[in-house]
Amino acid sequence: MSPAPGDGLRIAQVAPLAESVPPQLYGGTERIVSYLTEELVHQGHRVTLYASGDSVTAAELVAITPRALRLDPDVIDPLAHSVRLVERVVADADRYDVIHFHTDHVQLAAMRRLRTPSVATMHGRMDLPDLAELYGEFDDVALVSISDAQRTPLPDLNWQATIYHGLPMDEIRPSLAAGHYLAFLGRTSPEKGLDDAIAIAQRAGQPLKIAAKIDPVDEEYFESRIRPLMTGEIEFVGEIQEDQKDDFLGGAAALLFPIDWPEPFGLVMIEAAARGTPVLAYPRGSVREVIDEGVTGMVVEDVDQAVAALPDLLRLPRASVRSAVEQRFSQSRMAGDYVELYRRLLAGARRDELASLPIRPTAMADLAPMNGGNAPDEAPAHG
Amino acid sequence: MSPAPGDGLRIAQVAPLAESVPPQLYGGTERIVSYLTEELVHQGHRVTLYASGDSVTAAELVAITPRALRLDPDVIDPLAHSVRLVERVVADADRYDVIHFHTDHVQLAAMRRLRTPSVATMHGRMDLPDLAELYGEFDDVALVSISDAQRTPLPDLNWQATIYHGLPMDEIRPSLAAGHYLAFLGRTSPEKGLDDAIAIAQRAGQPLKIAAKIDPVDEEYFESRIRPLMTGEIEFVGEIQEDQKDDFLGGAAALLFPIDWPEPFGLVMIEAAARGTPVLAYPRGSVREVIDEGVTGMVVEDVDQAVAALPDLLRLPRASVRSAVEQRFSQSRMAGDYVELYRRLLAGARRDELASLPIRPTAMADLAPMNGGNAPDEAPAHG
Repeated sequence: MSPAPGDGLRIAQVAPLAESVPPQLYGGTERIVSYLTEELVHQGHRVTLYASGDSVTAAELVAITPRALRLDPDVIDPLAHSVRLVERVVADADRYDVIHFHTDHVQLAAMRRLRTPSVATMHGRMDLPDLAELYGEFDDVALVSISDAQRTPLPDLNWQATIYHGLPMDEIRPSLAAGHYLAFLGRTSPEKGLDDAIAIAQRAGQPLKIAAKIDPVDEEYFESRIRPLMTGEIEFVGEIQEDQKDDFLGGAAALLFPIDWPEPFGLVMIEAAARGTPVLAYPRGSVREVIDEGVTGMVVEDVDQAVAALPDLLRLPRASVRSAVEQRFSQSRMAGDYVELYRRLLAGARRDELASLPIRPTAMADLAPMNGGNAPDEAPAHG
Repeated sequence: MSPAPGDGLRIAQVAPLAESVPPQLYGGTERIVSYLTEELVHQGHRVTLYASGDSVTAAELVAITPRALRLDPDVIDPLAHSVRLVERVVADADRYDVIHFHTDHVQLAAMRRLRTPSVATMHGRMDLPDLAELYGEFDDVALVSISDAQRTPLPDLNWQATIYHGLPMDEIRPSLAAGHYLAFLGRTSPEKGLDDAIAIAQRAGQPLKIAAKIDPVDEEYFESRIRPLMTGEIEFVGEIQEDQKDDFLGGAAALLFPIDWPEPFGLVMIEAAARGTPVLAYPRGSVREVIDEGVTGMVVEDVDQAVAALPDLLRLPRASVRSAVEQRFSQSRMAGDYVELYRRLLAGARRDELASLPIRPTAMADLAPMNGGNAPDEAPAHG
């Protein structure tokens, strides 16, 4: 790959293989990778996207698998493809100024040893007991959090920035007339708070529309705990596609987001607000960072407070809700934040390279063995 | 770690973390790792075992997790621990003459780059579509197959040897008097052929005892397809422990092994035969390599042939069944085969090191970056 024109960077985006980029169904990470990739191309960078072969992008696509793993019944061992994905990126690494991973853990050992600067955005919760020792071991690799709250369980890692998600605002049509129902959009797992959403709607005397994916693991919970609650004006519309969100979210009076887990970001909050629809949410995880209290939504502690707050919430001017999202959560702002970070990592790597020339092999480095030295002592990889 | 005494090698054994070594329940891989590790210690080598902390060994134990992942309800993300396991082995690599992985794929990228010679035993089936491209990419890493049949789907990898499993014969008590029932031992999944085992026993007019683990994924198959077949003298004894096998397998007249999948090895065949119990099996996967036709068992194509062969099978002298297993499938033979391979890998690595001195960094190699060069062109890692 030749250098990018002008001031552009040569960037690799490395997506998970579970869904295509963008995803055909549910898949928040793959959607964000898509927004970021397309915006970086739009801004004049040379971007290569490593993803499943059914992905659609204006970047150069390196297809690791013919299609998204989750939709391929022949796939029994997804890890086999992730290991291959990382190895392919390593083989190509010299072609890039920076490599951006969105693939959780499987690339950590490679990141530590890549000469090309790299960064990984953490898309999931970081409070699982499994992760503390793993990321403690890899506390030298450059990470991005998607909210400040996300990093609180593991504050001492090499966090480079919090970069909030962004949306393609030009493609999202706001609805400036208030809708006539409350909306819930998400999985039906207990942590998403659908039971409280139903209680809020019923006690407020408002209709509720539920657009939800029922994962196999959540079926029993849904049938035994949620279905019996669904009396009155409650409509279950099932899983919706991206192109139905303008209608579903834009048509709502408010989005209910009464979560019961440390939400790392909560994309649906900005998806609703981008359509002018204010958000009523519980203060877990990222919520207080994403919602502009009294502008794009309100944060409440429980069903009682939610019912009490609802009249005020419904009076928030929808045009202001939309414009606040345009300012803070556009994909151009997101891409700009990442480019700033990429340039910082690149500058740091060049400094390191100069400083270490006497001890680094200048040729055949590709074949250098990697025994030991899992944590370079003299300087962090990207300062 | 100082050099091993005398002619001994410094060996790392890297086990999966799903079960302890040895396993408390089902876990063929972990059991073989245990047999091999204990025998290597017994033969005078300095062995370090990387495994879950509830493992029991005479080797030095490096506990990666407090206990086996499958038994730990707090574990949501097992991959996090596997990635950490590999990184720990890499950090310690200079302490060993050879590193032996039993962990499927997660170590492949490390094996390619380790200065210390390494080898991975493949414990599973190699015919899954997911594996072809992955192992095609890593066709330079040294692999061991557990049967020749196992490697047929991917013949062009860097197979170093087929090394059959072995058992601690001293600890296994043979039963030289013929038993009064047929035995089935294994999972209840369709590929293990429990339906045919039942048909064989019923048509032969023999009682059948079934010692089987019912995995959650197999529950529906078992209840709908197997349970209705279980009429007559059929006894379901559930999952059995290691110390019950002398009674269960030794007390049987024959083991039925009518499998319907490419069995990579089929440990239960030698476990039965080690107790003097002959095996009646279908010719899939490793079966013709493991069974000495007419000595330790007979290979038949279907239920009809099985019923016809059973009288001859029951006349095979049980002392000869046992002694054939002692000769071909002892853990000392298995460990000897592995040591021979370790020495060959070590000699190859020393040759490579001498040949490549001018281009390899002799110091600070630990910190060498790993961009590109995923497949060294000039020589395989271990020739």
